[in-house]
Formats: sequence, structure tokens, C-alpha cells
Amino acid sequence: MAQGTLYIVSAPSGAGKSSLISALLESNPTYAMKVSVSHTTRDIRPGEQDGVHYHFVEKEHFEALIEKGEFLEYAEVFGNYYGTSRVWIEDNLKKGIDIFLDIDWQGAQQIRAQMPLAKSIFILPPSNGELERRLNSRGQDSEEVIAKRMSEAKSEISHYDEYDYLIINDDFDSALMDFKAIIRAERLKQDKQADKYNGMLTALLS
Amino acid sequence: MAQGTLYIVSAPSGAGKSSLISALLESNPTYAMKVSVSHTTRDIRPGEQDGVHYHFVEKEHFEALIEKGEFLEYAEVFGNYYGTSRVWIEDNLKKGIDIFLDIDWQGAQQIRAQMPLAKSIFILPPSNGELERRLNSRGQDSEEVIAKRMSEAKSEISHYDEYDYLIINDDFDSALMDFKAIIRAERLKQDKQADKYNGMLTALLS
Repeated sequence: MAQGTLYIVSAPSGAGKSSLISALLESNPTYAMKVSVSHTTRDIRPGEQDGVHYHFVEKEHFEALIEKGEFLEYAEVFGNYYGTSRVWIEDNLKKGIDIFLDIDWQGAQQIRAQMPLAKSIFILPPSNGELERRLNSRGQDSEEVIAKRMSEAKSEISHYDEYDYLIINDDFDSALMDFKAIIRAERLKQDKQADKYNGMLTALLS
Repeated sequence: MAQGTLYIVSAPSGAGKSSLISALLESNPTYAMKVSVSHTTRDIRPGEQDGVHYHFVEKEHFEALIEKGEFLEYAEVFGNYYGTSRVWIEDNLKKGIDIFLDIDWQGAQQIRAQMPLAKSIFILPPSNGELERRLNSRGQDSEEVIAKRMSEAKSEISHYDEYDYLIINDDFDSALMDFKAIIRAERLKQDKQADKYNGMLTALLS
């Protein structure tokens, strides 16, 4: 069986990354695909489920996992740890499942260094005007808050050239077709297909 | 503007390569795509058009082009030359046009050595039984002729692992969707997109 592919997906907030990943997984039931679920030490919030939104663990447990080298990447934010489990990802890839990792450029750099076969995708909004409109769509935030988000978005966007693929999310359906084409094409790579059709190739050459 | 991509497409005869390339070019009018037309010194046959099936040239002219290094690859078969013009391909790639080069594994090796950015696709039949059925579909050929074609097909297939992508042509529509996904995904590669959306990226980062 062909090994799954690890996809690193990054974007500034407002680019539509989460919606695209959700739509991809819902629309593509013939391929085995999962979104990576991070570990965290922060408290569970109302509406969140353990194992779905995060794996919620105690700080001592998280630190023990760090020492065992079980995280591909982790970070401490406002006193809470967040991390990506190497074991869970490797187990799923071995089963032929594609894993999607929703992560920022800093996490992406750490993952790439340890998982050189990972493919990375960056999703861009079509313009600053559209990005601002999307970030402001709830209409509840001050100009200052919006300006800070725009500045963070620009900082994220400045790393676009570290990724294998760029998707422009102007029209959602077209961006989703782009996303699907990347996944389909990666599965057609010679080494993946040779694994998958190993028996057929042996028969063709016998 | 983003440079086009040169696609090397190989397959044993009977795998459906020509039908897939034709269907791709007919179905995908939004992208600029052309099939490379070879030069040859052999005589034009009834029904063939100069510039469509081949560029028909005199032997002296062909040999002058060889000396000028204008062929990416060429071969002499039964006293006639066949070759692929470097200038025509490079001119079209510069215009952003994807070029499809229908060529065997030997030609593919020569092209790859000179055009390292080319992407190569190998098309496989699903089984020897199906291949034999397709090679025999006209029902006019002797067992000996069929056996020779099967042997040539196996020799071509043995080079499948030199290619970037493998398409299994079991169901034609599915194989065509595979082909389209590869072309779409290659256009989403970061360097191609960064060229295409250069102005947009500058605006996003300004």
C-alpha cells in the first residue's frame, strides 16, 4: 500500500483555510484523509470535544512527551503548550491516510525540517480589500483590532514562497477544485502509484 | 507571465496515450496547450498535413538543423530522420503554453537531460490481457505480429519508473481526470503562481 502524504496548510486568517480543508474532507470520501488534531494543555472550552478540537492533556504529560521527542513541533503560548504528535501522524501515513496539518509558517518550517516528504500549500486571499472585508465581516471589532489582524496577515503572507503550492481563494469552488487537483496529482506520483499497483506492474512485466 | 510546462508523455502502444492527449486538449480550452509537432524527412502520406502531423523537411535542411543544435532529440529510423525542435518548444513555453511531447522512453531520456524542468507522465494499460485485446482490436494481425507488439510494449513498460507520474488507463474518463489533475496541480506550483500573480502578491505585501 502507498504511504499517505502529510500536507502542511498555511494561510493568513481570512483566507478561508479552515473552510477549504473542511469542504475537501467532506467532498472526497474515496480517499482516506484526516485533519491532524493537536495536543494542548489549555482548558477545554464549552462546545469543544477532546480528540476532535484538541487532545487535551495535563502539563506534566505534555512535558513528558516533549522529553520523549514525540512532537514534530510545539510552542508555548500564554503559558499553554500546543503541539503536533509525531506518532499519530506517522501511524496514519503508514495506513495510507493523507493528513492535513493546519499550521502557521513557523510550525511549517519545523515540520518541513523533520518530514521532508511533506507537501505544503499556502492559501492566499485575492486582495487586501477582500481580506479586510472578511476579517471585518462580523462588524464587531475596532479599527485597531482589524489593523492588527491585517498586519499579522501580511507577516504570514510574506512566507508564501516557502510552500510547494499556492492557491488563490477568490472563488471558493475554484479554490476547492485547485485543492482537490493537488491531492489527486500527488497520488499519481510514480512512487505512490508503483506501491499501489505493485501487483499489476509485476504482472505487466512478467 | 508564468512559463509553460513541457510534458513528456510515454506509453506502450495500446495504452491509449494519443486518445488521452487529444481529449485533454479538446476539453481544456481555458489553459493554453499544444502538442509538439516533430520534424521528419520521410515523405508525406495521403491525409497528412505539413505542420499538423509533422513538419516535413528535406534531409539537407534537417542535417543543417542538427549541426546548429536545434533538436532536443532526433533519431534515424529506416533512413528517415525524426526530431523535436528546441526553438519551437522554447518559444511556446515562454508564451505560457504547456507543450505535450508524445515520445518513447529513449526520446524521453534525451529530453529530460536537456530540459530538467520537464514533467514526465507514463500511461499504463490495466493488464496484459487488456493490452493484447486493444492491440488485437482490428482483428487483422497475425499472432506473430501481436506477440511482437506485446514484447515491445513490455520493453517500454519496463521504463515506467523513470517518470514523474503514472496514470493507469483502465477507465478512460477516470484516466482523463487524472491527466487534468496533474496539469492543474502543476500550474499551482508556487513558482508558477508567483509569476502569474506577481502584481497581486506585491499589492498584498505592500
